[in-house]
Amino acid sequence: MTVTLPKDLTALEYLSAEQMRLILDTAEAFKEVSERPIKKVPALRGKMIANLFFEASTRTRVSFEFAEKRLSADTVSVAASGSSVSKGETLVDTARNLEAMRIDMVVIRHWASGAAELLGNRIRSNVINAGDGKHEHPTQGLLDMLTLRDKFGRLEGLKVCICGDVLHSRVARSNIHGLLTLGAEVAVCGPPTLIPPAIADLGVTIFRRIEDAIQWADALNILRLQLERMESGFIPSLREFNRVYGVSSAKLAKAPKDLVIMHPGPMNRGVEIDSDVADGEHSVILPQVTNGVAVRMAVLYLLAGGTADAAHAGEG
Amino acid sequence: MTVTLPKDLTALEYLSAEQMRLILDTAEAFKEVSERPIKKVPALRGKMIANLFFEASTRTRVSFEFAEKRLSADTVSVAASGSSVSKGETLVDTARNLEAMRIDMVVIRHWASGAAELLGNRIRSNVINAGDGKHEHPTQGLLDMLTLRDKFGRLEGLKVCICGDVLHSRVARSNIHGLLTLGAEVAVCGPPTLIPPAIADLGVTIFRRIEDAIQWADALNILRLQLERMESGFIPSLREFNRVYGVSSAKLAKAPKDLVIMHPGPMNRGVEIDSDVADGEHSVILPQVTNGVAVRMAVLYLLAGGTADAAHAGEG
Amino acid sequence: MTVTLPKDLTALEYLSAEQMRLILDTAEAFKEVSERPIKKVPALRGKMIANLFFEASTRTRVSFEFAEKRLSADTVSVAASGSSVSKGETLVDTARNLEAMRIDMVVIRHWASGAAELLGNRIRSNVINAGDGKHEHPTQGLLDMLTLRDKFGRLEGLKVCICGDVLHSRVARSNIHGLLTLGAEVAVCGPPTLIPPAIADLGVTIFRRIEDAIQWADALNILRLQLERMESGFIPSLREFNRVYGVSSAKLAKAPKDLVIMHPGPMNRGVEIDSDVADGEHSVILPQVTNGVAVRMAVLYLLAGGTADAAHAGEG
Repeated sequence: MTVTLPKDLTALEYLSAEQMRLILDTAEAFKEVSERPIKKVPALRGKMIANLFFEASTRTRVSFEFAEKRLSADTVSVAASGSSVSKGETLVDTARNLEAMRIDMVVIRHWASGAAELLGNRIRSNVINAGDGKHEHPTQGLLDMLTLRDKFGRLEGLKVCICGDVLHSRVARSNIHGLLTLGAEVAVCGPPTLIPPAIADLGVTIFRRIEDAIQWADALNILRLQLERMESGFIPSLREFNRVYGVSSAKLAKAPKDLVIMHPGPMNRGVEIDSDVADGEHSVILPQVTNGVAVRMAVLYLLAGGTADAAHAGEG
Repeated sequence: MTVTLPKDLTALEYLSAEQMRLILDTAEAFKEVSERPIKKVPALRGKMIANLFFEASTRTRVSFEFAEKRLSADTVSVAASGSSVSKGETLVDTARNLEAMRIDMVVIRHWASGAAELLGNRIRSNVINAGDGKHEHPTQGLLDMLTLRDKFGRLEGLKVCICGDVLHSRVARSNIHGLLTLGAEVAVCGPPTLIPPAIADLGVTIFRRIEDAIQWADALNILRLQLERMESGFIPSLREFNRVYGVSSAKLAKAPKDLVIMHPGPMNRGVEIDSDVADGEHSVILPQVTNGVAVRMAVLYLLAGGTADAAHAGEG
Repeated sequence: MTVTLPKDLTALEYLSAEQMRLILDTAEAFKEVSERPIKKVPALRGKMIANLFFEASTRTRVSFEFAEKRLSADTVSVAASGSSVSKGETLVDTARNLEAMRIDMVVIRHWASGAAELLGNRIRSNVINAGDGKHEHPTQGLLDMLTLRDKFGRLEGLKVCICGDVLHSRVARSNIHGLLTLGAEVAVCGPPTLIPPAIADLGVTIFRRIEDAIQWADALNILRLQLERMESGFIPSLREFNRVYGVSSAKLAKAPKDLVIMHPGPMNRGVEIDSDVADGEHSVILPQVTNGVAVRMAVLYLLAGGTADAAHAGEG
């Protein structure tokens, strides 16, 4: 039976294991395109994509834009400042307008949890969630899984600990849903104020001490600590956070095996992660970025109606 | 005899009925391109277009950018913030620089009335006015007329009432010039403070009561009320404006026939227009947006030297 | 022997005369592309270029973007505001991320002197300096030299005086290195507060009076006076600066020959240059802009591995 995706990619919570595997396998095929001298396939030629970024983001926006261009799509980017939003237009009206312009796909980042789903339910164009509030960031979850699969050859049975500010993290939420569905074991570790109380109900182990997480895990996915968390009283100080929860080579030296180190970026070096860990030999932080483009190409391609077999398309 | 356009599109006031019909007919041909799976024709391949937006505008900018990309042009967008303008350069120097870079066409939105014409007179590149101060917004006028022509099959003899803040509206001005030239009857309706006194001299009927306008009209073009008008003392309150001049289904129920409802967007739902009217069965607000792309494709194409017959160009 | 360029273009100080001549000759070949109806060659098709502008700049950014598009490259632009920089990411992390996305080339403008070189040393992608602090602006220096060579047929022995705020000017520094290497004589002229004391060591003549510079020079390259210099106490007033150092037709009338007038823009008309000089018959200010696109095409093309012979590539 052929596996297909829903119209929109709003959350990994809604995808089956087969659907996620389809995306990861397709991304694997697209990775090769980025290594060519001419990094372009004609798969989405003539397709129009709007990138709506209601929150600032260089990394994710640039990754999506290059993924779109490598598929030969035409793109227009809209930032929150300078948009009709500042004139008080509703998100649904913005979306209906894009649909009326016959935009094929909308990539949206929004500060409100649920914004991507709201949008997808109102328009026929495909919607891809590039991060919505504290909800999900599904392409980040997928690229993290692709990176782990590349490194370990499998996700089943893998032990992944997500470290730091889990409470506010859409990256954590997408990783938890994705990894559990694909058979990995997931734990979280961080200050009690930054671990949502009900997370154990999802089947996630909670470690209070990073030392315990390091004993247990095959890989650590270290979240960015928003510096404004300190001002809001979630943590006593950055220095304190680094001392207790920051991942250092000293702490890693006590692990029973080498741990794979991940970080969604941008990093606060010396806060949640020390520089020698970030740049160390077990870090896959830059491969995550490389995989990000491939995963986004795969999602754009599959939502537009492409099939995994045809992903090795000829040069554009 | 072949109808041709002037070098620039700065105002509908300067176009003949034949010239406007040429644009509308060409737009009609381009509408089909936006419905194709591959929404692209090679008409402007290798043409370089600069989009200069000295005022924020998502809707118009995105509409122009997608129109340009559907014609295969190359585009660069410049927003006022971050431009040389903030370094005190004159508009004419900016324009001469773009010309020196061999930009083929300039799309300009500017807060100063007359900016597009000033620009067009100084450079050889084609200039398209995307809204200049309180002067004109010709592509909006054209897309409004295309939408009315689609709906009624004609413009001659049609009764169109423009409602709300006519005083500050370049949309109103372009509609008035365009509709009168093409044989429609035009009225305006709004608070005395927002209706320019001399507008009757153009041959426009003035209604003081929206109830009277509704009795008379075939279509209402309801303008956006800039919320800052209240602070400036033009209207007593938004609530008052909505009660007296806002278009509601209760007011429309007393019309002798179904009225076509237009709005250039972005809408203030519950101020100048109620939601059930905006989303009702006689609303053509979204078809206006769809037609906007087609009209802009037509204008870009014709100014670049295209002919109406060739507008059904092959796939790009 | 074949002349080749280094991986990055960060400073004219590092280029040999042969390397600069290679760029100028290649630019000469590309000038013709911008005069075609279809201004596009396929030279960089499938190449991905990131334009990182940490300082506002319309002129240089637009010039680079059109140069990139005329070579059929795919581009993404990142402005400082709204970038990860505002999240505290280091420049090197930003750069490594772009490299991980398999970006082929990075064009960077940065407020810090040395930023482009720092970047180039850390990543395999080609880096082009679009202006770094008070250090260099090499493509501006090259376009100035191309314009002089066009006008005089040679650079050897030419007498060029750079006028105004030399102290803060990366344009001055690139011109001095480039012109001296290619055999021109270089002088500077400006208020003592705005002439760096050690500049004579480079082999540059210092004129205190603009009248003396005018007697000596074949061409004046008149720098923009940053208006904030007055507030910082470098000059007593704009009016005073204009009277003493501003280039006017009255002052030029006393020259023994017609002087070629250059300005990198944007101009403060009536401050460092009077309007009749800027727009006069010996001004090459607009040809500078035209040459800017050609020079940037040449640099992008050569760094990407192109050869001067193949620069007359067929239509894209």
